[in-house]
Amino acid sequence: MARVHEVTDVDDPRVDDFRDLATADRRPDRPGGRGLVIAEGTVVVERLLDSPYPVRALLGVRKRLDALADHLTGVDVPAYEVSADVMSRIVGFHLNRGVLAVADRAHTVDADELISGSRRLAVLEGVGDHENLGALFRNAAALGIDGILLGGGCADPLYRRSIRVSMGHVLRVPFAHLDAWPGGLRTLTEHGYRIAALTPRATAASLRDAGLDQGRVAVLLGSEGPGLAEDTISAADLPVRIPMNPEVDSLNVATAGAIVFHAMSGAR
Amino acid sequence: MARVHEVTDVDDPRVDDFRDLATADRRPDRPGGRGLVIAEGTVVVERLLDSPYPVRALLGVRKRLDALADHLTGVDVPAYEVSADVMSRIVGFHLNRGVLAVADRAHTVDADELISGSRRLAVLEGVGDHENLGALFRNAAALGIDGILLGGGCADPLYRRSIRVSMGHVLRVPFAHLDAWPGGLRTLTEHGYRIAALTPRATAASLRDAGLDQGRVAVLLGSEGPGLAEDTISAADLPVRIPMNPEVDSLNVATAGAIVFHAMSGAR
Repeated sequence: MARVHEVTDVDDPRVDDFRDLATADRRPDRPGGRGLVIAEGTVVVERLLDSPYPVRALLGVRKRLDALADHLTGVDVPAYEVSADVMSRIVGFHLNRGVLAVADRAHTVDADELISGSRRLAVLEGVGDHENLGALFRNAAALGIDGILLGGGCADPLYRRSIRVSMGHVLRVPFAHLDAWPGGLRTLTEHGYRIAALTPRATAASLRDAGLDQGRVAVLLGSEGPGLAEDTISAADLPVRIPMNPEVDSLNVATAGAIVFHAMSGAR
Repeated sequence: MARVHEVTDVDDPRVDDFRDLATADRRPDRPGGRGLVIAEGTVVVERLLDSPYPVRALLGVRKRLDALADHLTGVDVPAYEVSADVMSRIVGFHLNRGVLAVADRAHTVDADELISGSRRLAVLEGVGDHENLGALFRNAAALGIDGILLGGGCADPLYRRSIRVSMGHVLRVPFAHLDAWPGGLRTLTEHGYRIAALTPRATAASLRDAGLDQGRVAVLLGSEGPGLAEDTISAADLPVRIPMNPEVDSLNVATAGAIVFHAMSGAR
């Protein structure tokens, strides 16, 4: 059972993990970055507690900690109970979700493991926006994608805003970095994946004709602006497009991803 | 050609339309609301200039007004040129898109007209979030939906944030209010539409089996939390679901809409 401690002093060093949240979750390889994994709100905190990330502590108002009581049984971490006012002074802004948990980063899965243990993968290139990244994880979880490979130029999925937009699914959908890019895509081919590259170009196969619900498939998704690099499209087995009104700017990458993920799923 | 006037005085009454933007776009039926249609950024301003809404004026920094020069030829509205500092003091916050246009609301289309002139429609119930609403318009425009009917409990698509998230497509995709709700759905049936209701319930037909790319189709989409009301689902011809991982909260309504819109489009 989590130990609940009341905290009334904003400067209490026990809650330092939660101080100035806007910087606490900076990546460890950046100046001042600590790289903590931060979950906001009861649903996402529950997912963090259920995840492989080692939880360090919780901070929350009484009502939210009470709502988590079932999840806190059998968890040996301190839970700091604060008033809403003390909470916003610790974190540096008003946070209306009322509860937070922090965890350390943890090794989760290797790219090779993820590739060999999966059937449907999404591979991202240049997705630098944390909200798009989080939304892609949420959509992947909902639509049966087994894991996500991060190619060149992607943002950090464990950044707080990404975790929040993913509804905590960043903590559940396995992901790994593909270090060689785009050369590392060869590992997918070696494991029998067909690699589809999503692109607006007119010569690409229409999604509904591409048969992506058959066999092992990995879909490459690029950022909204420039899309996938030429080299990346060349490294794929087939370019695929979503038929679109030519007068309209491309879809949001997470939305386009959702359409493709649904097409990849054979589920009825 | 738009007449360009330099404005250096924050209190200049000619730019009153742009003052305290956060309130200027409130709906005319709300206290203090003026209901102006406000476009932000060059792309969305261009779409407003191309729309049926009567543009009143533009406000922008030199660089952005210059970028719009082609669009401003043949447009007889004042364009107020300001410094970035004066601009943020007028609008009440820093707006990094650098250009705004305001227009009056205009009668666009009746529900009956929209229904009789279309083949694929989206019908929304309880979509109260402006960003979701805007994203639905963007996705509808991209994926070939002819128009949007607003049923009960929807937010105002012409609110600034909704226009922005739609990338201006709120100004292009025709929409109309269905006053009787859900009784007004009968008009769709009278015009030969099949009405599909998106719901997570297990007994609904799977989207890929529903044949929504055939004939006249209207899809009902509800808000993320409660979904469609029972009465609304009963008024539809067929409940349809997107196969989903049962452990995952539902998809975002605009994302779910995009998946359905793609299925409705026969385009290859």
